[in-house]
Parts: sequence; C-alpha cells; structure tokens
Amino acid sequence: MYGWRLRIGLIVPSSNTTMEPEFWKMAPKGVSIHTARMNLTDVTEEALIKMEAYAKDAAERLADAGVDIIMYGCTTGSLVKGKGYDRQISQELEKHSGIRAVTTSTAVVEALREIGISKVAVATPYIDEVNAKEKQFLEDNGIEVIRIKGLGLVKNIEIGRQEPWAAYKLAKSVYTSNTDGIFISCTNFRSIEIIDILETDLGVPVITSNQASMWLTLKTLGIKEKYKEYGALMKEHL
Amino acid sequence: MYGWRLRIGLIVPSSNTTMEPEFWKMAPKGVSIHTARMNLTDVTEEALIKMEAYAKDAAERLADAGVDIIMYGCTTGSLVKGKGYDRQISQELEKHSGIRAVTTSTAVVEALREIGISKVAVATPYIDEVNAKEKQFLEDNGIEVIRIKGLGLVKNIEIGRQEPWAAYKLAKSVYTSNTDGIFISCTNFRSIEIIDILETDLGVPVITSNQASMWLTLKTLGIKEKYKEYGALMKEHL
Amino acid sequence: MYGWRLRIGLIVPSSNTTMEPEFWKMAPKGVSIHTARMNLTDVTEEALIKMEAYAKDAAERLADAGVDIIMYGCTTGSLVKGKGYDRQISQELEKHSGIRAVTTSTAVVEALREIGISKVAVATPYIDEVNAKEKQFLEDNGIEVIRIKGLGLVKNIEIGRQEPWAAYKLAKSVYTSNTDGIFISCTNFRSIEIIDILETDLGVPVITSNQASMWLTLKTLGIKEKYKEYGALMKEHL
Amino acid sequence: MYGWRLRIGLIVPSSNTTMEPEFWKMAPKGVSIHTARMNLTDVTEEALIKMEAYAKDAAERLADAGVDIIMYGCTTGSLVKGKGYDRQISQELEKHSGIRAVTTSTAVVEALREIGISKVAVATPYIDEVNAKEKQFLEDNGIEVIRIKGLGLVKNIEIGRQEPWAAYKLAKSVYTSNTDGIFISCTNFRSIEIIDILETDLGVPVITSNQASMWLTLKTLGIKEKYKEYGALMKEHL
Amino acid sequence: MYGWRLRIGLIVPSSNTTMEPEFWKMAPKGVSIHTARMNLTDVTEEALIKMEAYAKDAAERLADAGVDIIMYGCTTGSLVKGKGYDRQISQELEKHSGIRAVTTSTAVVEALREIGISKVAVATPYIDEVNAKEKQFLEDNGIEVIRIKGLGLVKNIEIGRQEPWAAYKLAKSVYTSNTDGIFISCTNFRSIEIIDILETDLGVPVITSNQASMWLTLKTLGIKEKYKEYGALMKEHL
Amino acid sequence: MYGWRLRIGLIVPSSNTTMEPEFWKMAPKGVSIHTARMNLTDVTEEALIKMEAYAKDAAERLADAGVDIIMYGCTTGSLVKGKGYDRQISQELEKHSGIRAVTTSTAVVEALREIGISKVAVATPYIDEVNAKEKQFLEDNGIEVIRIKGLGLVKNIEIGRQEPWAAYKLAKSVYTSNTDGIFISCTNFRSIEIIDILETDLGVPVITSNQASMWLTLKTLGIKEKYKEYGALMKEHL
Amino acid sequence: MYGWRLRIGLIVPSSNTTMEPEFWKMAPKGVSIHTARMNLTDVTEEALIKMEAYAKDAAERLADAGVDIIMYGCTTGSLVKGKGYDRQISQELEKHSGIRAVTTSTAVVEALREIGISKVAVATPYIDEVNAKEKQFLEDNGIEVIRIKGLGLVKNIEIGRQEPWAAYKLAKSVYTSNTDGIFISCTNFRSIEIIDILETDLGVPVITSNQASMWLTLKTLGIKEKYKEYGALMKEHL
Amino acid sequence: MYGWRLRIGLIVPSSNTTMEPEFWKMAPKGVSIHTARMNLTDVTEEALIKMEAYAKDAAERLADAGVDIIMYGCTTGSLVKGKGYDRQISQELEKHSGIRAVTTSTAVVEALREIGISKVAVATPYIDEVNAKEKQFLEDNGIEVIRIKGLGLVKNIEIGRQEPWAAYKLAKSVYTSNTDGIFISCTNFRSIEIIDILETDLGVPVITSNQASMWLTLKTLGIKEKYKEYGALMKEHL
Repeated sequence: MYGWRLRIGLIVPSSNTTMEPEFWKMAPKGVSIHTARMNLTDVTEEALIKMEAYAKDAAERLADAGVDIIMYGCTTGSLVKGKGYDRQISQELEKHSGIRAVTTSTAVVEALREIGISKVAVATPYIDEVNAKEKQFLEDNGIEVIRIKGLGLVKNIEIGRQEPWAAYKLAKSVYTSNTDGIFISCTNFRSIEIIDILETDLGVPVITSNQASMWLTLKTLGIKEKYKEYGALMKEHL
Repeated sequence: MYGWRLRIGLIVPSSNTTMEPEFWKMAPKGVSIHTARMNLTDVTEEALIKMEAYAKDAAERLADAGVDIIMYGCTTGSLVKGKGYDRQISQELEKHSGIRAVTTSTAVVEALREIGISKVAVATPYIDEVNAKEKQFLEDNGIEVIRIKGLGLVKNIEIGRQEPWAAYKLAKSVYTSNTDGIFISCTNFRSIEIIDILETDLGVPVITSNQASMWLTLKTLGIKEKYKEYGALMKEHL
Repeated sequence: MYGWRLRIGLIVPSSNTTMEPEFWKMAPKGVSIHTARMNLTDVTEEALIKMEAYAKDAAERLADAGVDIIMYGCTTGSLVKGKGYDRQISQELEKHSGIRAVTTSTAVVEALREIGISKVAVATPYIDEVNAKEKQFLEDNGIEVIRIKGLGLVKNIEIGRQEPWAAYKLAKSVYTSNTDGIFISCTNFRSIEIIDILETDLGVPVITSNQASMWLTLKTLGIKEKYKEYGALMKEHL
Repeated sequence: MYGWRLRIGLIVPSSNTTMEPEFWKMAPKGVSIHTARMNLTDVTEEALIKMEAYAKDAAERLADAGVDIIMYGCTTGSLVKGKGYDRQISQELEKHSGIRAVTTSTAVVEALREIGISKVAVATPYIDEVNAKEKQFLEDNGIEVIRIKGLGLVKNIEIGRQEPWAAYKLAKSVYTSNTDGIFISCTNFRSIEIIDILETDLGVPVITSNQASMWLTLKTLGIKEKYKEYGALMKEHL
Repeated sequence: MYGWRLRIGLIVPSSNTTMEPEFWKMAPKGVSIHTARMNLTDVTEEALIKMEAYAKDAAERLADAGVDIIMYGCTTGSLVKGKGYDRQISQELEKHSGIRAVTTSTAVVEALREIGISKVAVATPYIDEVNAKEKQFLEDNGIEVIRIKGLGLVKNIEIGRQEPWAAYKLAKSVYTSNTDGIFISCTNFRSIEIIDILETDLGVPVITSNQASMWLTLKTLGIKEKYKEYGALMKEHL
Repeated sequence: MYGWRLRIGLIVPSSNTTMEPEFWKMAPKGVSIHTARMNLTDVTEEALIKMEAYAKDAAERLADAGVDIIMYGCTTGSLVKGKGYDRQISQELEKHSGIRAVTTSTAVVEALREIGISKVAVATPYIDEVNAKEKQFLEDNGIEVIRIKGLGLVKNIEIGRQEPWAAYKLAKSVYTSNTDGIFISCTNFRSIEIIDILETDLGVPVITSNQASMWLTLKTLGIKEKYKEYGALMKEHL
Repeated sequence: MYGWRLRIGLIVPSSNTTMEPEFWKMAPKGVSIHTARMNLTDVTEEALIKMEAYAKDAAERLADAGVDIIMYGCTTGSLVKGKGYDRQISQELEKHSGIRAVTTSTAVVEALREIGISKVAVATPYIDEVNAKEKQFLEDNGIEVIRIKGLGLVKNIEIGRQEPWAAYKLAKSVYTSNTDGIFISCTNFRSIEIIDILETDLGVPVITSNQASMWLTLKTLGIKEKYKEYGALMKEHL
Repeated sequence: MYGWRLRIGLIVPSSNTTMEPEFWKMAPKGVSIHTARMNLTDVTEEALIKMEAYAKDAAERLADAGVDIIMYGCTTGSLVKGKGYDRQISQELEKHSGIRAVTTSTAVVEALREIGISKVAVATPYIDEVNAKEKQFLEDNGIEVIRIKGLGLVKNIEIGRQEPWAAYKLAKSVYTSNTDGIFISCTNFRSIEIIDILETDLGVPVITSNQASMWLTLKTLGIKEKYKEYGALMKEHL
C-alpha cells in the first residue's frame, strides 16, 4: 500500500503549482501525499482571509483517504489574521476531521526556533501589504525581521512560474551579516533545489515554506528520515 | 516552473490513495500533477452517482492552477450511469472550467481499442453490483467481456491497501486464452508495477485504469513520451 | 566452490516461505545456505512440539552437504517447552550430526542481551496461546516483556503472506517509551527490509527472528561481515 | 509475500551444494525457491536408486509451503533406471503431493530438443558407470551422444568443490565439430557462469543441468522471463 | 593537449552568455572551444551591422590559439545584410586569419536543407524588425517561412536570461501542421535541452542556432560524433 | 539562465588553449565562464608587457555579458613589471569596466599564503628570463623561492601541447624537502588532473595557476563550493 | 586460476612499454598475459635483426608458465628480413617451445585481409629505413601501401612516450581517400584508445599493431569475445 | 605515456602465473608493470638457488624499458640462502642495471615490521623443505613463526592453479590467537581478493607476498596511493 509509513493530507490554495511537486520530491520512502484545494487566485490580504472557508471541506475529504496528518499548506494564509491564527486553523481542522493538523506558518516559526534563527532576512514573492503581515506575525512570535524584500507579485500563478535561481538571487540580495539566517517564504515559490547551495555560499541556515512544512509534518508523527539535502533543518534536525 | 510541458489537473474520489502516487511515477519530464477531490468512501452504485456532484467545484479549482487538461480519475464513477456517461461528465467539466477534460472510463475504452482488444478479461477489486455496471458499459462500447472477476471490496480505502501482486494473481486467474488481453480496473487498485511482468508472462496486452488515464491525458495534448515500462500501450502507442 | 567462507545448514518448518529468501538476502560474500524441512502447517503449541521429531533427520542430511553450522530456524518451535528447550535442541542436533548447531530462540535472547534490551516490546503474527509461551520464555531468560501483540494467525502459510509494512505498523503500535527496543518474532514474518526504517523512526534497536538467527550463525563461526543495513545488531555487533 | 509470481519447491540430494545457489541466482523477480533434501553422499548407481525413497516425504513438505511446482533436482537420480524413469518419478510426486512435478533429466531432454541438439558432447563430473547410464538414457530419448567425458568423481561433496572453469575446460575438451552442442551434466557441477562464454567461444548452444531445470520449471508454469545471460536456452526459448 | 581532435575558435557578440556553455555541453571528446568577442548589447539591425567591424581582430586572436576552424556565432549578425552576407563574412575571416571560417546563418540554412525542411515555423526572442530580416534571408535561401514569432526582446542580456522551457513553449505555439519543422533562432536563446523533447512531442525535426552551428563546425572538418541527443540533425546527419 | 550563481569574465592571452577547458572543468553548478582574448604568441618579457594594451577592450566586452567578476588569466602577464603590477592591472580594469577584477598572479600569492607555503618549489614551462621575473615577484611578495625549474619553452602554443604528466614529472623533480609546497606556474600549462596525485605522493600542498585563479574568483564573490578534487586549496580553503 | 580461458605468452622487445598495458586493457575475461623480453633499444634494421637471437629463450620461459599460445610482439622485428620471415620465426618458436606461436606482422597482414584493406595508408613512429622495410613486406604480401609516414624516432623508449593523439593526428594526416583503411604500426606506439574515434571520423577501418596482435592471438585459439571497442576488427571479426 | 607516475620492472620465475595479474590489479593510476622471467619450474631449494643466475639478464632488459625500480618477485627465491640473501640480490641487481632494486622477501619482512607482527602464523603452498627455509629466514629477521603450514606442492604451475579461497581456508586453519597476524607466502599463490575478508573475520592484519611486494615498491619511490582494499598494510601504511 502507498503511504504505509505516513500518509500526508495536503491542503493547498487552488492556484498553487509548486507545493505538490516539492512535497513529492522530499517525501521519504513509504510516505505518500494526498491533496485537496481551497479557492485562491490572488495573494492579497482579503483573498487569503476568504480562502479559509474552504479548509474544512478539504480536511474532511483527506480524512476519507486515511491520512495520518493534515498540512494546511499556505504561509500567509495561515498568518494573515496575526499571532495565533495558525494554531486556531489547525485546531479547527482537527476538530472537524478528527485528524492531527498543522500549518505552514506554524512550521516556519518552529523551524526558525529549532535552527536558532532569531534575527532573520526574509525573501518573498509578495507585495508589500502581505510582507507587512508576515513581518508582524514573525515578530509577534519572537523572530526579529531584519530585512524583508518581495518580488511584488499578486497573481499566485505568476509566483509559480519563478525559477529556483530567482529565489537564490533574491535571498542573496536580502541577506545581511547581522542576521542568523534566511527565510524564503511562500509554498508556491520554488526553492528547495537551492537551499543547500545558498547555505554553502552564505554559511547560514536557510528555511523555506515547503521545507519547513515537510519537516514539521514528519516530526509531528515521528518520521526521522536521514536527509542528505534540503538544508541543515532536514539534515540535522529530524 | 513546474509543469512547463504539461500540467495535469487530477480529480480523484476522496478515499483514493493510489492514483496520485501512480500518476507521479508515470509523469514524464516537465509534467506535473495537481489534485482535487470528490467525496466518496464506498464503491457502490449509489455512492458513485452521488460523487459527481463534487466534480465541478474540483474542476474550477484546478483551473486556477492553470492546468492544461483535467482528468476525472475514477473508472466506475465515470461509467455508472451507462454508455455516454463518461462523455457527458467531461463535457460538463469543460463547459464549467473552460479546460479540456477527459475521464478514466473514456481512457479505458480508447486504450482497449487502440491496442486491439475486443474480447477482454477483467480483474477488479469491486463487488458484483459494480462489476455488472462495468461489464455493461464495456459491452455497450463494443468490447466483449469474456470474464470478469472481483475481490468483492466495498470500502475504497481497503482497495488502496492491496499490493500489486494481488492484481497480478487476480489478473492471471481471470485470463483465458480466448481473450485478446486483460483490463485491471480501478484507479485505486495498485498495479502499474506488474503490467510488464504480466504482459511478458501471458503474452497479451494489459490495460489498467491509471495507465490508460495517463495515456489518454498525454495523447490528448500531444505529449509523446518514449516509455520503457508500463505496458505496450505506453511503450508503443503514444 | 559455493560456501567457501561458510556453509549454513538451515532447518525450517515445512510451511515457512520467508526464512530462505531473507537468509539469502543477508548472506555475506562466500556464504551459502542449504535447507532442510520439518513438517508443520499450523503455529500452535501442539504442532510446534510435534515438529521437533523431524529435526534429526534434517540435520543428518545437512551434514552430508558439509555445512559448518546448523540453524534450527523456528522461534516458537525452539522455545515452546520453555527455558532451556533451545539449548536442548541444539545439543541433540550436535550429538546426532556432529555439526555445531544453534536455534532461533537462542539467537533472539543472545541478540537482545548483546544490544542491551532488557525491557522489550514484542510484535508477532501469532495467536495468544503462542504469544504466552514466548513471553514466558523471554522473561525466564531475564528479558522483561512490557507489551506483546499478535496478528492472531494460526496458518503459517498465511503468516508468510504478510508484507514488511505489516511488521512495521504492528511494531510501531506495540512500542512504548518505557521499553529499550523492539522484537519482531517469527522466522516466517517478513521484516528485514523495515528494520532500519523502524530503528530510524523510533530511535531504539530492533531485533527480528531472522536477523538474530543470521547474526548468531555468523558470530558463532567468526564471520565478521561489515553490514550497512539490517539494524544496529548487524551493523555494530558482529 | 515471497514467491508471488512463482514458488518453486526444490528437492536435492542431501550432499548437493550447488543447485540452491544457482537457482537463487537465476530466479526471476517474484520467484522464490524452497528446498527439501533426499539422502545421498556418493554418485553411484546403487546410491542414486536408493535416494528415490526420500522423495515423497520431501514433496509433501514442500506442498506445505504452497509451492506451485516441484523440481526433482538430480540429473542421474532421475534417469538411473532408464528411459521413462523421469516421468515415473514426477507422476508419483504429483500423485502424492497434489502439486505439478518435473525432474532434471526430463528438463535436459526437453531443452536439448528445444534448442535443436540431436548430436551432443557431454561433460560430467561422474565415474564411467554413471556416464554409461546417462548416455543410454539420452540415446533412448533420441539424442545421439557423440562423446562423453567425466572427471571420475564419486563423492558428491567433491563435485560441489569444482570451480566453473573446470566445467569450461572439460566442455571445451569434449567438444567436437560433429556435434550440435554441449551438455554439462550434474546439478552439483557449478557451471552457469560459463555458459555464455562457452557459447561465444564454441558457437554452439550449451545446456547444463541447473539451467535446463530452471528453464523447464518456468516454462511449465508460464513464466516468460527475458534473460540476458545463461545461454541461448534461457535468452531465446522461454 | 586540449583540442587534439578539433579546436574550435568561437566568435560571439560580447553580450552573449549562452553560446559558450551550449558549445561546451555539445563538444565531443577531444574537441575544445576558444572564444573571442565582438561588441554588441542590443539586438537591432543597426547594432548588428556595426558589430562586424570587430570580427577580424577576434579571428586573428583565435588564429594564435591554433584553432582548426572559426565559427562566427551570431544568427542575425550574419544575415542582417541579406542573402550572401554570411558567405561574405566567412570569406573575409578566412582571408584575414588563414583559417577556415563559417557562420551561424550559413549553418542554419545548411541544416534546414540537410534535414529536409522547406517550410519552417520560426521561434525567436527578437523584435519584429529583426524577425523581418531573418524571414527575408531564409526565403531568399529557398526556405519558406510559414510562421515567425518573437518574444520582442531588444537587450541581448535579457535574451540570455530565458529558460529552455520558454523556447519549448514558444516553439510549440508557433508550430502548425503545414510546416516541415521548427527553427529556434538566436545563439543566445537557451534551447538545446528541449530539442529532443520537442521533436518527440511534435514529430518534426527541430533546428536551433547553436545546434546547427556546432553541426556545421564538426561536419566541415570531418568530425563524425555519434550523438544520442540534440535532435535528429546531430543524431543522424553527421 | 546560465551563470545564475556566478558569471566569470575570463581574459586570456590569445594563444592560451588550456585555461578555458580547465575553468569549465572546475566550474561549480550555476557558474559560467565567458572569455575574451589579448594578443600574445610568445612568452617573453617584451611580449607580456605589450599584451596589457588589449586588456581594457576585453574587459569592456565582458562587462556587456553581465559578468560578476573579471579574471585577468595570465600568470607572468600580471607580474612581469614586478611587485604591485597585478593590483595595478586589476584596478585599471575595474575602473574601466565597472566590474570587480582580479589577476592570476594575485591569486597565486593569495593561495600560497592561505595554504601556508612560505618556501616554495616552482615548476614552469618558461625560459629563464621569465622564470627570473616570477622568482622576483614571489620573493617581493614574501614567498621564498627555494628552487625554480622551467621547460624552456617560448611559444605559448607549444606550452599548451604539454600533457599533465609533464607537469607531474617536472614538479616532482623540482621538489625538495626544505620547501613547504609546490607551485606549478602558467595558465596554459595543463595540470589540474595531477594536483591530487602530486599532493598524495609528496605530502605537501600544490598550487597551480588555474586552480588558484578559480579559487580567488570564487572566494572574492562568496561561492563556497565543496570540492572533492583539485588540491587542498580547493577542498579545504573555500 | 588466472588464465583459465586463455594464457597468452607475450614476447616483447626489452624497451617496449606499451604492449603489456594495451594487452591487459584488451584482455577478455579469463585471459591472462605473461611476458618475456628480448634485448632491443633502437628501432633500426640492424638491431631488429639481432633481437631475434633472444626469442627462443623467452619462448622457453613462457612455456614454463603453461601458456596456450606465444605472441612474438614486434611489428618490424618480425618482418625485417622480408616476406616469410614472420612465419619462419613462429615456426622456430613452436619447434623450440612446443607451443603454438604467432607474430605481430603475421597478425597485421591477416587483419588487413580480413577487414578488406588492399590499399593502405600507414602511420608509424619509425625512421625511413624501417618504413621502407615495412612497405616492402606489406606489398610482398599483397597489400598496396598508398602512403607511409613516420615520426622519425630511433629510440624505442621515445616511441613509448607518445600520446594516443599523436597517433590520431599522424593517421589523419596520412589518410587519403584512395585508400581502404589505415594501419598504425608499432607495438610500442600507443593507439588503441583512438581506434574507434578515428574509424568514426574517417569512415574506414583502422588496424594497429597491438589490436591486430590480440585479435590473431584470440582467433587462433577460438576465443570469440564480443568487443564493443577497439575497432571494427575486434567488434565484428572475431 | 604508460607509467608516467611509476614504471615497475618485475622479475618473476618463468612458471609464475599469478604475480603479473595481481600486480596489474593493484597498480595505482599512472603505474605500469613490465615483466622479465627467470627459469624455474619446481619450488625446491635446489631449483630456487639455480634461478638466481637468470636475474641479471632480466634486470638488464627491464632497464631498457626505463623502469624506475626492479622487483625481484619471488618469496623463497630471495630467502633460500638465509638471512641477508635478499639484500645481496637487490644490491647485485642495482649494481648491474643501475636501477633501484628490491625483493619480495625484503618486502615481507618490512611489511611484518611496519604492521607490527612479531609472532606470525604462516600459510604456504610449499613442501616442508621450503617451509623450513622460510621459517628460518623470518626468525633470523626477528619474526617469531608460531605456526607454519603448507599445501605440499612442488610444481609451481600447480600452485598457480589454486583459488583464493584455498588461501583463505589454509590461513584460517593456521591462525591461532597467540599470533599477531597472518602471512600468506608465495607470489604465485593467488590471495589478494581474500585479504580484506580474512582481516575482517580474524581481526588481525594479513600480509601476502604480492601485496607486500607492491607495497614496498610503491613506498620505496614515494607513491602514496590511498587504497581502499588489499588489507591494512595498503590502506593505512603507505
């Protein structure tokens, strides 16, 4: 059977084209991914808030697949209402589906803490309005955002067209030596291929939305895969 | 960007745990899979008919991901109302989403014709009630069903627990020399690993629901991958 | 010549279909396996006791093959009469055949001690009656059985149909944090593929009947293969 | 489960140390080997005749393992009483065990016919007495034995100590251009590694006891593996 | 020594960042690439005409490196003055340097003829003004341009930022069934990775500027590498 | 895009045939090389001084390619006027092109210091006149030249014909135990293949012109590739 | 044992450093090479004639090693006295040692005939005096020498220092279209690496002294290795 | 050129068939082997003493090949006259040829000392007479021979027919725990394949004649290859 070690139920915004391939790439032996979608086309505050309405249905369907855990796979979608919003979402999903649930923004905060980043440089594909929400959320969770820089994209489908080197270049340009590491935000911003190169070149840990999401998913259910790529978080903190 | 050669939008019953991993395994370079789900837990006539109600929403969401084609990924779900039901579903999905759509049962019929099977032996995980519907549909489409044999499973999640060798053994037991080939039915019945072994041992072509679904999806949009596995259909008919 | 480094004579219950393939998989370079069988179809106390009658003949035949050591390859078959029964069997076989002999249950006890497990969680395919015998034997040998859980199978041929992930799931469900490790019992219960994954995920050593049997066989005759799989026992204790 | 495609029950003389390793090497994916033994130490006419008494018990035990077919794995043991003895043995085993049975000498004759060898050069490890029996059997089955040459060994365990190049050198020395091919006799005479080299160097097909035995076993139950080694018989006649 | 089989002297526009890596990727064993540059930043008619002034100096320097042949590596730069301009450039370079010289636009015309494309669909990164020159040149050389489509880029450095899939998508969109094949123009437009995929999917031959340039370079000096990629031109026409 | 991690602008003497292939071999993932040339045929003091006149034009052209750094790739060409000449060249190139610039002789001095060689044995392809310049330059920069030995070649194209083992043999013959390491001079003297063998055999670090040039280029822009070859400098000092 | 398929006794001139490594590289599985030497330092007519005196002793020693065949491994050494000299040498060696013997010049003539070269272009490392002898010998054996060109080397040890590309370049320069193929002479002239490249580039068969020597050695004793390199002779004529 | 890093001149008894293949297998990159022979067929005291007469001629011929060192490759041949005989041989060869020379027995003593074996168990193919000489030589050089055991073979060609497992079994049987390691004697006794297995199984270092010979040859001329096989001597003591 597929997913004998772990079945992950993944909820993504409808316009996300990156999280499914990156999750399949990172999936350890015996782990399978099963997806459901919530309507979203633009990455704006308003749209992100509306999206939540579709989450429960999605969770219910994934429960039918016998998933062991549900990942609410959207960074800003799980932080747009501020501190605690991520936990609120996962609790509601758990109540509704009877399955353990986590969110990307929870994963990001946990990962930054685990790896010891308290001053972070953030690279995003977002517009300023969304960046401001993210900065606020991180700082309210005790992570100082030294710099944050976005590509200014509203259309999520446009974000999904970016190449990994766009993330590399943006991350390198936002990095300053008074930070402890980098966070590349957005589950639709392709970047897992360049995590290790970026860590090698800059000498600091790099967290991305999808990497942190997979990490927390595995960690929550005790899958301790010995990764040889995808950054120090995956290689040394499972 | 992921899916630069082809983005497939895949609609599966909520309890299906096999079609996503098998589609990712068979996906050619540059092809990505994006999934949405329709509620279903039991494989019964009644439940399959109800499921269709969720298809439009799923298609709409996949359209947000910029998919090039939508695959309605359920064999019996796209034939339960008899001949023509498959075409009716794909037409409605196309109308609603503005995206080209196909279904598994259409794919199966097309594949059987393409490979030249007019008398088929059918192996399924289903109960008799569902087998009867399938037999009717195939024969109404001009394919004579010489033998059909099911595992008698109702719970779809139970079907997803079967190993490939279960499909191998069932297929071998249903085969008779007066057939032109085998059809292993159900997108949740794991079997792509044993297609080539079965073809080698029996000397006739083998069609499975997921193989045929991927084949029709690629063929419809002109992706002519040169497969070296997954049966004569994939190796010689793209 | 085959077996120039070591020729293992393996005695298995007639209905065992797993020990031969697992022994061949684990066999180091220059080591060959030669098998003889004892009649057994059901894994019950009564049948296990009767089986012993066939052991001497089997040992005699293996002696003809010039084997260096004889492994009595049945867990419960070598403990069903309680503490000391394993040593009694091996002594008789040695006396009769003139060849060094060991048994699976001896191997399991030795392995648990070597790896430092004094409180164990036990996963088996057996019925309760047989589990009770096993618990007693282990405890009489100084290993505390914290939990033991069986699949409730009587027919040995049915045990041989289980997939490795069945052993993984059962082992994971029987594990509790107040144990030092896991023992997966039965030479017919396929499990060597998942030893390392289980050790990684749970962080404790895992002993299986076939792994321990191979380990004691090699150790007894001084074959110190440097394994890279099959658990800490094989990787670090030869 | 092991042996989902085919489970072979193998009966060998107790002192045979070559047939098990060669059968495991040649076993296709999904095929497993399960062994039982008959007492034999010397390869003499008298001993070979006595050995048959142990065959039924062995077959019965293999039936417990759910094997799909039983191979009586001894060349001279299945021909020592002359033409028809091989068929007699397999019929008795089938009657007793309820399982399809074949023998090595049947396999050799079938293989020689299939590959088109009617005039053969035979290389054996045997003494003249045994060679005479073999020559008689082959000729009574319509295969003319142009030359036959043995190593003169009586002890079967000594035969099992020969290296494959001994078979190569013997076969090359017995070959003459007025034969259609070579037969290397004895399931305990290691030779599968040199079949392809010998065929390349001499330009004629080479049959060995173990190769022919595996070939007939697979062919009888419709396993059509695409071999890339082990001679023209395996590469082109399954 | 490097380049013992062939030393290629490559002249590129100063802003070209693609031809050097693509030439090194395609270089057969024993072939080395040595580069010199001509000033150019914008791909406009005016700038392309000015560029030629720098070619002689470049050729002279490459002669110092003992190159066996000089490739003037710019498509539009060698056709901007119309039919015959390509031959004029190569003759001047030969006269000046004493070394055999060829140009990209000569290579493209030769390749189209060799592969049998007389009606072509052209994909370019250029603006209309440059596309018009290219169409004229091809048609004056007897190749009918059925369709031509450009990305509208002026800055050459921007052309060098395009990913191969941009070429794939553009080529697919410009293709019509009344053409014999595709030509992807511009030595700075990355595309060799997708030639084979495009040929597979469309079923017609695909010529690109760099592929044709390498092909003519090798062909002129009799290097007949057996390519397994880079399109039918390289695989079947050397 | 090529060179997304780093684009190197490489200026070489026109007759150099080794630096481009060695730089491409050593280039890390995402790093591309773009070349321009300065006229030079003989390696004499006079010719090396004249060559500098062509450097600015070359740098300007490389700036058009958007390179991140310019390497003036000639050892003696950047030291022929003595201490400080290397810095003078790179400053002028930077002023003229607006791009960061470095030279080979700077790289060599930096590398010798980094690796801790203060007493060096030098192997070169040069004539004595050029060796004298090199010795002077190194000693003025604080590196004591214990021994220096040249092949006496004037024609640069002849230097480019030497095999790596010529460098190995020369280096081994110039080595004495009172040095801390070896320097193999000249960007046209093929040697990167034998750096590791030489370090293994002699037990001291080995610096070559091209290795040091790549090292300084990467180091200047923070590319910290984890090399597994090309000497201790590349493996341990990035 | 080494050499179970074939033991080659190789007699080489004392100063030859190429034939042993090239013979080991080309040796099929189960074939071993054993060497003895005859005194020779210069490749002159006089020295070659004197060398023969040492051949008998060498052959006698190789006979002690149980070799199956003796190769007199020197091209000009076995033709210097003209037509028939090669046969005379091998007959004497056979008489003296009792072992089958062949020579390089016999091998070359046989190979040229086998491959169908009647008009040959010859590349050698020799001086004119030796080339003249070779031309005479070939023509007396019915092979027309269209062109012959030598490097003019007398010292054999100097010949052994040439790289394979020297043979490639020389062969290419001596080739003319009115020949049927190339012969690269001298068992000390390294060239087996470039046979296939040369055949690909020129489109005619290429014979070298060592390739032909190995070919005749294998052919004489019926070793029909399926080569995938070393020219059409080895790939298609064994 | 072959042997650019090191050219080894190897002198072997004429009937030795093992040292050449084992030396080629162990030869590091850039190291070539060139062989000459001394007459010997039987391994007896008398024959070994006579053999020396042929050594000077052999050395002279190897000097013609420009070898860097000469190895007198015979264990007992270089110790048969007792302590100091090995040094006497190498000095004479050096005087005569002008090339550095070493012998196998010197290598064995040096290797035993280097690895720290002062009490040794010795496995040989020899008769007692020869074993006695060897024991004396080792003990006179300060190595206590705890046990020595031979196969009793006189004919050297018979020694060359032994398989590596014969050495493994003999070595294992001669080992006792009061020794520091094993010495497998004779350059014609095939054994390098089983050195690592033997060291793993017994836990003590293993020295063989050919391994020690290669080790001393490399060490003498400063070739420090990083071996991953052939025992602790090669892996840790170069």
